[in-house]
Amino acid sequence: MSKFKPALPKGTRDFGPEVLAGRNYIIDTIKDVYELFGFAPIETPTMELLSTLMGKYGDEGDQLLFKIINSGDYLSKADENALQRKSSTGLLKSISNKGLRYDLTVPFARYVVMNRNDIAFPFKRYQIQPVWRADKPQKGRYREFVQCDADIIGSNSLLNEVELLSIMTEVFDRLKLSKDLIEIKINNRKVLEGISEAIGASDQFRDITVAIDKLDKIGMEKVLEELKSKNLSEEACTKLQKFLSFSGDFAVTLDYLEKELSPVSQTGAKGVEELRETFALLENKDRFTLDLTLARGLNYYTGAIFEVVPKTIKMGSISGGGRYDDLTDIFGMPDVSGVGFSFGLDRIYDTMQELNLFSAINLSAASILFIGKNEEAQLFNLDKVRQLRKKGLPAEIYPEAAISGGKLKKQMKYANRRNFSNVVVTGVNEMEQRIIKVKTMETGQENSYSISELIIHLQQQS
Amino acid sequence: MSKFKPALPKGTRDFGPEVLAGRNYIIDTIKDVYELFGFAPIETPTMELLSTLMGKYGDEGDQLLFKIINSGDYLSKADENALQRKSSTGLLKSISNKGLRYDLTVPFARYVVMNRNDIAFPFKRYQIQPVWRADKPQKGRYREFVQCDADIIGSNSLLNEVELLSIMTEVFDRLKLSKDLIEIKINNRKVLEGISEAIGASDQFRDITVAIDKLDKIGMEKVLEELKSKNLSEEACTKLQKFLSFSGDFAVTLDYLEKELSPVSQTGAKGVEELRETFALLENKDRFTLDLTLARGLNYYTGAIFEVVPKTIKMGSISGGGRYDDLTDIFGMPDVSGVGFSFGLDRIYDTMQELNLFSAINLSAASILFIGKNEEAQLFNLDKVRQLRKKGLPAEIYPEAAISGGKLKKQMKYANRRNFSNVVVTGVNEMEQRIIKVKTMETGQENSYSISELIIHLQQQS
Repeated sequence: MSKFKPALPKGTRDFGPEVLAGRNYIIDTIKDVYELFGFAPIETPTMELLSTLMGKYGDEGDQLLFKIINSGDYLSKADENALQRKSSTGLLKSISNKGLRYDLTVPFARYVVMNRNDIAFPFKRYQIQPVWRADKPQKGRYREFVQCDADIIGSNSLLNEVELLSIMTEVFDRLKLSKDLIEIKINNRKVLEGISEAIGASDQFRDITVAIDKLDKIGMEKVLEELKSKNLSEEACTKLQKFLSFSGDFAVTLDYLEKELSPVSQTGAKGVEELRETFALLENKDRFTLDLTLARGLNYYTGAIFEVVPKTIKMGSISGGGRYDDLTDIFGMPDVSGVGFSFGLDRIYDTMQELNLFSAINLSAASILFIGKNEEAQLFNLDKVRQLRKKGLPAEIYPEAAISGGKLKKQMKYANRRNFSNVVVTGVNEMEQRIIKVKTMETGQENSYSISELIIHLQQQS
Repeated sequence: MSKFKPALPKGTRDFGPEVLAGRNYIIDTIKDVYELFGFAPIETPTMELLSTLMGKYGDEGDQLLFKIINSGDYLSKADENALQRKSSTGLLKSISNKGLRYDLTVPFARYVVMNRNDIAFPFKRYQIQPVWRADKPQKGRYREFVQCDADIIGSNSLLNEVELLSIMTEVFDRLKLSKDLIEIKINNRKVLEGISEAIGASDQFRDITVAIDKLDKIGMEKVLEELKSKNLSEEACTKLQKFLSFSGDFAVTLDYLEKELSPVSQTGAKGVEELRETFALLENKDRFTLDLTLARGLNYYTGAIFEVVPKTIKMGSISGGGRYDDLTDIFGMPDVSGVGFSFGLDRIYDTMQELNLFSAINLSAASILFIGKNEEAQLFNLDKVRQLRKKGLPAEIYPEAAISGGKLKKQMKYANRRNFSNVVVTGVNEMEQRIIKVKTMETGQENSYSISELIIHLQQQS
């Protein structure tokens, strides 16, 4: 077998214990809050049929899907014509029928349609699983990353928007991502439709949202340039810029919109009303911004839209979502309204890491390592370790006894590298006296305990 | 967009809330025990380079790997010759360089080699992630399934075997998979080598283990037939059969082996000694069987081997593992001994399901649903729900108020299908009296509470 230097596929990562402690802390926090709000988990397979995935994420999405080669002699059924022409796209259909999950929304829609008869609607599900995109890797963008979705499907009530926004603040509060550090933006696609109407460009609603969505990245000037190139009139551009530049707190912006939109656009008026009702029901109203420049690229949104971005560091959105009216229609189940959103685990981790928020969280359980100076001491220690574990206290035994002469270099190096808070060294004296000698690593102090005393001591520490 | 009946790829499954509650219960149990024993988690990417995976699982394994087509115009770099010959195998290398994780052992070995300078050895890691095999789906065999591995690498001490076997009994005890329901089998590859020597066929050790491994499936007669066809002598077969048919408890079998092997095989004697030392250190010795017919197909095992099988139902092994001496050698890091094993989540779930073990476990949190007879009642309820959640008590609000007339058909149907233990219905009377009227669904009894009384009531239930 040839030996080679092992490597990872581009854009993927290993996670060691330390990073994983932080990631799992975030996931556990999100899970706890989802369950507090009555959401139940589902999981869908890593692989989906390409017939489920293709055409749902636009042309770019189709390109970015990871596709799996059919098993066995896949070329035996290959499209001859495509093979001759060496057409990668043409050949695909005949040699691959599966791809990796690209997001959790389309699999969720498929799940709802396939299980419609067993689901009690409104269905409140959460789903925390990785997704894969063959994107160009860069800061905050990986080829394998974890989404944490929550959706309520089968109900029009705006209480659902309120519940989801409450989940957001609860999760970010628990993660210490306070108001100073992140901004939670809200808008409504009906308001954007109203604005399109108000500026006399309702037929260009899609172009407008697609352009606005790039505002953060390319700036106002280039957004307007793009729209002009798509034949939006000079006058409409000027009016649009005025809307997008309006600044004021939530209530003030609502009044402004009502004044500007209600007389000219029924849809716009409806959007304002939805925003007003949602805002009225929110706790911690000062956590939310009404941001008219928030558009969300995805076309399936039809009402409220949300997005969360860090304020003090450069990072894409760490959470986003909105109301959709016909998601399951793509799989033949029309007229089911829902609202949902996603936390991006990897970007939340990167954000917390960059803001040094993990330092305040104790991620490692208090732990104790037993070292034996000889084989007999190992047996003595094994018995103690077992008694601690029976009380639910994590405890470890260093598998090799000290070499003759009682040198503990290897053992103590291990204890330091693993960062144990307590280390027990057992030799002839300790066994004779039947005591457990514990060194507190932080202070260097040594104390002797009986097993029952040690149990109490460790219980107090944890 | 064409509408079609959505489906899942062959051998894959969706998991709804109910099944997931059971699966997560098993995972949480395993995690808790791993951490109690001082194991730390790692995770590796879903995709690995084919250069990492190929050749590690035998020819069959290479076939069963799910392979991912390179992104972009993958045919532009395709092997012309293979393309002309329509050679599926020949073309593969030039159009695919990644595959899905096939097990957790090879990625773990790669991880250890790549992170050797940062790891404190002995390294105790656990890893709970799905793996994929393009196997023919059948009972207990899926194309996507979850393995829960624990390994200790970088230590020869038999204490590690003892720790892993203690983890096994602890996990199965917690899952109520008692001695009557499962058998934990132990053997040692050195003993099998000793037996090969003792029957005069040490050069056919591999053939012998491969054949023995099939004993459960094909029976003794066919195993011996297979070995004869591989030129094992009649005499050797007779002797082998005698070894494999020996029956006795652990201690008796050890004595038998010592008598038969020690005089004729150094390796065999070493194996017996290892088994004896391991057995001496085990708690609950009656949980373990010394099974000479246990071989484990994988060739990298060099010492202890373990396997767990249900006794009362037909199901493959639900856990297995062993000692390996050179796993990381395939990636250029020789002489690192380790021992590890895996719990198979899916088969443990199937076993517990078949044995009806989940019925005794309360998997759903006590929960309460608030229903409002009108919009004002919804506000009243929202306030109460928020107060409960602030105390950590899961609570839900049905998003739509009852339609005029106060009919609650839809709401009560939902409450029943979701199996809520408590349902609150708030109307004009309740608001006037400022009470929360709670119906206990099991008994149908109704009680009125203030919010502080309700908090205490629910805390007592949970």
